[in-house]
Amino acid sequence: MVKAAVIGAGSWGTAISQILADNGTEVRLWVRRKKLAERIKITRENSEYLPGIRIPDEIIITNELEEALEGAEFVVMAVPSQAMREIAGAAGKYMENKSIVISAAKGIEIRTLRRMSQIIREQMPKDLEVEIAVISGPSHAEEVARRLPTAVVAAAEKKDVAEKVQDLFMNSYFRVYTNLDVIGVEMGGALKNIIAICAGIAEGLGFGDNTRAALITRGIMEIIRLGVKMGGQVSTFFGLSGVGDVIVTCNSMFSRNRRAGIEIGRGKTVKEVVGSTNMVIEGIYTTKAAYDLARKHKIEMPITEKAYEVLYEGKDPVDAVKELMGRRGKHEMEELINKEWI
Amino acid sequence: MVKAAVIGAGSWGTAISQILADNGTEVRLWVRRKKLAERIKITRENSEYLPGIRIPDEIIITNELEEALEGAEFVVMAVPSQAMREIAGAAGKYMENKSIVISAAKGIEIRTLRRMSQIIREQMPKDLEVEIAVISGPSHAEEVARRLPTAVVAAAEKKDVAEKVQDLFMNSYFRVYTNLDVIGVEMGGALKNIIAICAGIAEGLGFGDNTRAALITRGIMEIIRLGVKMGGQVSTFFGLSGVGDVIVTCNSMFSRNRRAGIEIGRGKTVKEVVGSTNMVIEGIYTTKAAYDLARKHKIEMPITEKAYEVLYEGKDPVDAVKELMGRRGKHEMEELINKEWI
Repeated sequence: MVKAAVIGAGSWGTAISQILADNGTEVRLWVRRKKLAERIKITRENSEYLPGIRIPDEIIITNELEEALEGAEFVVMAVPSQAMREIAGAAGKYMENKSIVISAAKGIEIRTLRRMSQIIREQMPKDLEVEIAVISGPSHAEEVARRLPTAVVAAAEKKDVAEKVQDLFMNSYFRVYTNLDVIGVEMGGALKNIIAICAGIAEGLGFGDNTRAALITRGIMEIIRLGVKMGGQVSTFFGLSGVGDVIVTCNSMFSRNRRAGIEIGRGKTVKEVVGSTNMVIEGIYTTKAAYDLARKHKIEMPITEKAYEVLYEGKDPVDAVKELMGRRGKHEMEELINKEWI
Repeated sequence: MVKAAVIGAGSWGTAISQILADNGTEVRLWVRRKKLAERIKITRENSEYLPGIRIPDEIIITNELEEALEGAEFVVMAVPSQAMREIAGAAGKYMENKSIVISAAKGIEIRTLRRMSQIIREQMPKDLEVEIAVISGPSHAEEVARRLPTAVVAAAEKKDVAEKVQDLFMNSYFRVYTNLDVIGVEMGGALKNIIAICAGIAEGLGFGDNTRAALITRGIMEIIRLGVKMGGQVSTFFGLSGVGDVIVTCNSMFSRNRRAGIEIGRGKTVKEVVGSTNMVIEGIYTTKAAYDLARKHKIEMPITEKAYEVLYEGKDPVDAVKELMGRRGKHEMEELINKEWI
């Protein structure tokens, strides 16, 4: 029996445990808080992060990293982006040699602007040989837990590693495509949240489906400009961890980033929106990171720029939209026509 | 003053008239039915196709093609796809030499499988020199009429023609990008309706946002495979007349195709759905056309294939989804990786 550890029992970690258990894998789910772990053991429900879903009996719940990781051939890191460094460091001590560590977190470390897979690599003990992979794509945990059909990407630099992750996850409701472009998959998953905030703002302002579609389509162009500069491949951004994830994030009420944008569009200040939740709105940080990177590399990102001005400089969202619409006429896909991409 | 004729007073033709009038163009709007023309003249409202929107006084309403077309430098053809051949033929007699004819119809002629711009070209008198262009993208007429921000593509084989169309339409709520890939823009606009029906079916079956995002993302891959085979450029399908139009069509209740899919997903037969409306559900025909083309050219279009089986062979949509999810694991973007595209 294949053994896997899932580190982090938020909604996504919990849903991933279910996928792996459904596939006949022996799963240990590490829950950071001891009290929550005890409660899940008894009730077989993660009432805090994934209420209403029964956690299969065969999933072993533990609060001990050592117990979770013992003998695990696969380790799924499903923790918040900003906690990845700390938890990967702690988990590294107990990992098995030759195991495959899979990042399921979508975000960029604010302090270093590094991707999750880079942080995991940095935090592994020097004498440990592990492979690193990423799983990403349009996959709300609430729907995966209900076994609704979902398709995602498993990315790793080595094809056989990506295929092992594909085999681990794939089943009748969870379809997995492999991809060798780790950078592109991670950048797509992180940057999409900027567009989600913008789509939310447009919605909060009372604009319609046309505006949202325009923002999304032109927003994807910007993501690609930056993502390609960072080393990603343009094709990846047109796939599940790009277009696919953008679509789901901009259209679903499950998206915290979209909801935050709606509130801002309706007139709340950023401070009020951030203050009203104890959850991280990743896109607010990602917007700053992308804005700084765009300036540094001289990349044209007009939507990100306006998002930054709204979020950090108090610009009126109505003026931001006016300025976006008032730019000089352009040819579509200049970069592709000029063969700057691919 | 620039003179333009808009041929067809459905919702889209009426909204286009408003854009052009807002831009200071002299606009004549041709209304096919005499009674409707008379009513619009009196009420200044197209209550049948665009209720609640006041038609600017400076737009001239006429039931006569000759009156509409006299002196027009630009002619916008905003008629149903299946009526394009007939109306373009009738209008051709009155068109000015050197005018630019712009197709605003999204569809494929069922009988010949030809694109709208091809049909317009065929129907022009031999001794008439006209340029042909296309306008397409995510643009629900109901929202454009309310002057909500919208972005579209103006496509023509010649750059200066595309730019003239861009100048004609562009304003503070209607942003126009040029594109030289007429085939790609027209194929994107037509094929998107297949995906809209599929997204609707998935919704009607009770699936969630993940499923829809997966269908859309993988559906775009199929559109590209066929569109590229027909002569379109891959980059076009990632733009406003591809991804952008797919997004708006799959997420908006303004889409007839999506609504038809929802009904089918909920258990209605295709016959019942078609019988319940006097409007054409273009995607049902487009699915058949794309299915036939895919077989002819040996192109892999698994989603279109399942849509065809559901729409034309009575397959249970639940089985179709099961079969899609049960296909062997694949690498994402095989065509791009193998450089078959671009």
